[in-house]
Formats: sequence, C-alpha cells, structure tokens
Amino acid sequence: MTAQPKIVALGGGHGLYATLTAMRYLSTRVTAVVTVADDGGSSGRIRAELGAIPPGDLRMALAALVSAPAALEGLVDSAQRTRVTMWAQTLQHRFSGHGALAGHPVGNLLLAGLAEVMGDPVAALDELMRLFNAHGRVLPMARVPLMIEADVSGLESDPRMSRVIQGQVAVATTPGKVRRVRLVPNEPPACADALTAIAEADLITLGPGSWFSSVIPHVLVPEQLQALTRSLARRMLIVNLEPELGETTGFSLERHLHVLHAHADTLRIDDVVVDERSVPMGREREHVERAAALFGATLRIGDLAVPGANVHDPRKVADVVSALVQSPR
Amino acid sequence: MTAQPKIVALGGGHGLYATLTAMRYLSTRVTAVVTVADDGGSSGRIRAELGAIPPGDLRMALAALVSAPAALEGLVDSAQRTRVTMWAQTLQHRFSGHGALAGHPVGNLLLAGLAEVMGDPVAALDELMRLFNAHGRVLPMARVPLMIEADVSGLESDPRMSRVIQGQVAVATTPGKVRRVRLVPNEPPACADALTAIAEADLITLGPGSWFSSVIPHVLVPEQLQALTRSLARRMLIVNLEPELGETTGFSLERHLHVLHAHADTLRIDDVVVDERSVPMGREREHVERAAALFGATLRIGDLAVPGANVHDPRKVADVVSALVQSPR
Repeated sequence: MTAQPKIVALGGGHGLYATLTAMRYLSTRVTAVVTVADDGGSSGRIRAELGAIPPGDLRMALAALVSAPAALEGLVDSAQRTRVTMWAQTLQHRFSGHGALAGHPVGNLLLAGLAEVMGDPVAALDELMRLFNAHGRVLPMARVPLMIEADVSGLESDPRMSRVIQGQVAVATTPGKVRRVRLVPNEPPACADALTAIAEADLITLGPGSWFSSVIPHVLVPEQLQALTRSLARRMLIVNLEPELGETTGFSLERHLHVLHAHADTLRIDDVVVDERSVPMGREREHVERAAALFGATLRIGDLAVPGANVHDPRKVADVVSALVQSPR
Repeated sequence: MTAQPKIVALGGGHGLYATLTAMRYLSTRVTAVVTVADDGGSSGRIRAELGAIPPGDLRMALAALVSAPAALEGLVDSAQRTRVTMWAQTLQHRFSGHGALAGHPVGNLLLAGLAEVMGDPVAALDELMRLFNAHGRVLPMARVPLMIEADVSGLESDPRMSRVIQGQVAVATTPGKVRRVRLVPNEPPACADALTAIAEADLITLGPGSWFSSVIPHVLVPEQLQALTRSLARRMLIVNLEPELGETTGFSLERHLHVLHAHADTLRIDDVVVDERSVPMGREREHVERAAALFGATLRIGDLAVPGANVHDPRKVADVVSALVQSPR
C-alpha cells in the first residue's frame, strides 16, 4: 500500500461514522459507500415527500469525513478547525419542537435541496465535500431510493411460518427472527463511481452497523458484490460488538457471519475483525473461525471498543486495521 | 468617496435584492440591513415553529450579494462562477409538492439551523457569506422577530373609523387604506452592527420595496432612525415604480413620500430617486418636489426600470446612483 492508501468503507449509520473516522487516520483518500434504504425518521419523511434517496446515512458519512479528528488535525489554522467543527455540528443539528421541521437535521434538508438543484445526489455530495474542504468522497450504494424487505419467522403461532416485512424500520424493530432480506427493487443498479472506487481500492471495509439494514444490503446490489469479489484490495469485515435489539437480538458472532454468507456466498473477505471482548472461547471460537473461513477469511481479534460502551473506538480501529494491512493476508 | 465606498442598503424582499445587485456594481463593501417582520410563507412558518427571526428577506439579500453579476465578474475561474451561481440557486430553491417542506427555500432552513447552532443570526449570516466567498454583509434590522401592526381605514361602514390589523401579510393585502404602521414590540432595539455600518457609510439607500412592510419599518427602530439622521453619508430614497396592490393601492408618488415622512419627521434624505416614467408633470410634479423637501431632499429623475416591467434594472440604478454620488448634494 502507498502512504495514502485508497480506502473504501461500506456501511451506514453510526457504524459507518465510526469506521470513516477511523479510516481518516490512515488516509485522506477515503470513499464512503452508503446504504440508501432507510425509511424512518427524517430520511423516511424526505423520501416520502420528495421522492429523494434517504439523506440521513449520507449526511452522517459526510459529517464524519468533514470533522474527523484526523481531518481537523490537517487544518493548520485553529479558527478554521472551529468553523469546520461548527459546520459538521450544523449538518447534524436537528430542528426541535413538534412542528413540520422537528427532527430534520439541517444537513438532510441541505443535501436533499442541493440534489434537486443539481439533479444528481452524487454531484450534490461532491459539492458539499468541496464546500467544506473535506477530503474523500461520499457515495450512495444506488442512485434510487431502495426498500428493505425481510422474511421474518416467529411472528405466527406456527414457528415454521415466515412472514414478509417491508421497510427498514419495520425490519429493524421486528420482534420476530429475520431470516433473509431483499432489496426492492430487486437487484438495483449500483452507483458507477462506487464500483470504480471499489475496483481501485487498496483497502475495503464492510461494517460494523445494523446487520440487516446497513451491512447486508451492500452485497445485495449485484454489480457491487461482483466488484467486491473481483477487487484486489485487502477486504475486512468489521463485526458488531454486540447483537442489536430487534434485528439481531440474540445473534452470536458466528451467526452474524453465517447470515451474511447466506446472502452472498461468492463474497470474499481477507479479515474478519472482531473485538476481543466479543469472541467466545474454546469450541465456539472454532465455530467462528470456521464461519470466517466461508469467505476465505482469517479471524482477527483486537481491542476495538470504547471501554464500557457498545461502540467502536475509531483510534483503536485505525490501529488494528493499520497493523493488519501491514501483515500478510 | 473612496474607490470602494461603504454602502448600506436598507429594505427587504425583491426591492432590496435589486438594490443590492445594483450596489455591488459600485462597491464590494455593501451591507444589507433587512426587515424582520415577515409572517407569511416559509418565513412565517419558520418564525412560528422555531421562534426564529424570519429568514426569507435575509436569504434573498444573501443570494443577491453571493451571485450579483458584479460578484461573479470578480471570480476569475469560470467553474467557480458556475458553482457560486448554483449555490445562490440552491439558497433560493423551494421544495415543491404539498408536504411539510413544500415552499421552504433551502436557504431559509440552512440559515435558521445555523443560527440555532451558532446562537446568533448575525454570526450565522456572516458565516454563510464567508462559506460562499461573498463580499459584504447581511444584517437583520433587529435580532428579534418583529410584527407589523397597522391602523387601516375603509374597513368599516363609517369611513372615519380605523381598525388595527396585525401581521405583515394581513397589512400587505388589506382591502382598506393603511394609515400608519407600528412595530410590535414597539421601539425594538436595533442591530448594533447595523448602527455601526450606518455611522461609517459613504452612501445609504432606502427602498424600493413594499412601502409599509419593507421600507417604513426601517425608520420605526428608534436607534436606527437616529443613526440615519446623524449619518454623514449621502442618503438616497429609491422610490417604487408603481403603487403595490394591497398596501399602497392608488398611492401617488407624493403620497409615498408623505406617508414615510408621517412616520419619521426627523429623517433626513439627500436624494429622492424616481424613475422618469413615474413622475407626473406640471403642478403635481411640484407637489412631489415639495414632498421631497420635507426630508431636505432633492427630487432626482432617471431611467431606472426594465422596459415594460415593473422592476428596477440594477445596472441602470447603479448608473444613476453613481452619477448622483459624484454630483453635489
């Protein structure tokens, strides 16, 4: 890898925010590829009202790249650091109250409006990155809004029966067990620039994040899965620290890997990166290693978490990934 | 006056937009001072929902200074001109449809959100000007939202009776005759930076614009009226081309001047600038001259309008004002 490796980080939401912050320690050449299937909150209201791709996850990725500590360190002038921090805060700032604007982050409205004027969400994202003098790119997984649909069991009295649940919020909060997710429209066209970024990358990360709604969707875009499979980059899967209430309640580490593999058995990964606190011992650990091997991957265990909190520490993630990149596959 | 005179333009809405565009031909040092009493449309919804000063007139002034032809000419790079034009368009771009966002210009939401984060609308306006590399400043007439209240006659069967009408929209559209307007809260504190700009100005313009809601309010802020009265700047009143349906239906040129004077008899003006097509002949013209003299002003007649349209041509306004500035008071 070069001094400034080309990194592509796939994901969505807070998980991607943490990974992008981490990757900015390693390079200025970071491309975020972001899920566009959210139908909840501000994003859901904007896609319903304007027919736009849901801006929320894109906005978070943008804010991460604009104000990552490594990005701020690159600014010599402290007044400029203050301004950039304030702008990232403004992008994330939600209107309060109970009115028509309540809950909308300023950045969602700005991105949606700019995309309308420019006629293209990718051009709008590039323009915002330029406006805030940020390095890297933020790209949507697809240029059209997508919907997540899931087969969920455990909702009927007969446990063998499964029911189809539609929408990211419904899937993420189902009391049932999610078996399989699909995108609607099925097999959507990928974002061409994301395919190029993946093809040219030195390092690709997938996850962490809501497994069914922010991670697995990335392997459900056929062209993107193909690009991931063909890529010569070092490919790392960064696994969640804990199962999420709702969509992955009670999921073991092994189960996370199995369910991803069940959605994309051609996917190749080099490293399955897990936090040391979430790795089981003995026989179960062997099962995890075997699950990683389904992708051709090696299980890599490191210190990734903020102590006492269920969140990745970007600095620690950067250190672990950096060491891995320098080690043989 | 220096090569780059300090200009302060007072007003609101489309009238101020035209004046700011005109003044940018004459100087990079242009300060807009903008009314904040609008209660209609997007501004009205934002002030009602967020308690913010109505952003609409401020946003228009911002867009004018960002993308004035003279501002664009100052940009060497044509790609940069395209970007700036696109950003001004985005600030002005209104969401369509019938949803919660419909009718809100992107710039109103951006300004309202940034003002919440920065805790100050003046700081937010300065920051937006900096972000878009624009020269000049946009300042609100006051830091708190104001309301317009009017005594209106002709609404009762007895024509001598007058009724109190509240709100800019109600005043602007009343079928009655507006006699007098007040601000609520009465005698509001001025914006300190606006007072400084007025004190330091070489040239001050007032109008054109909705007479009762964008022009007269500027003389109803006592500190601002005092600053205008004391200022050593050349002071010009640019009068509307035609009466506006609603608030000034049937108003003669003379009546425009009389009604302003009735609201601020201490106001001193050097030039009352009117378009040649709107000046009456003979006796009536003398009446206009006498009305101008109430402010100590001379009537100045020039070619100001876009042919066939009820709008000022910024290039023509710039030429007329520039010639006046070089002539004795």
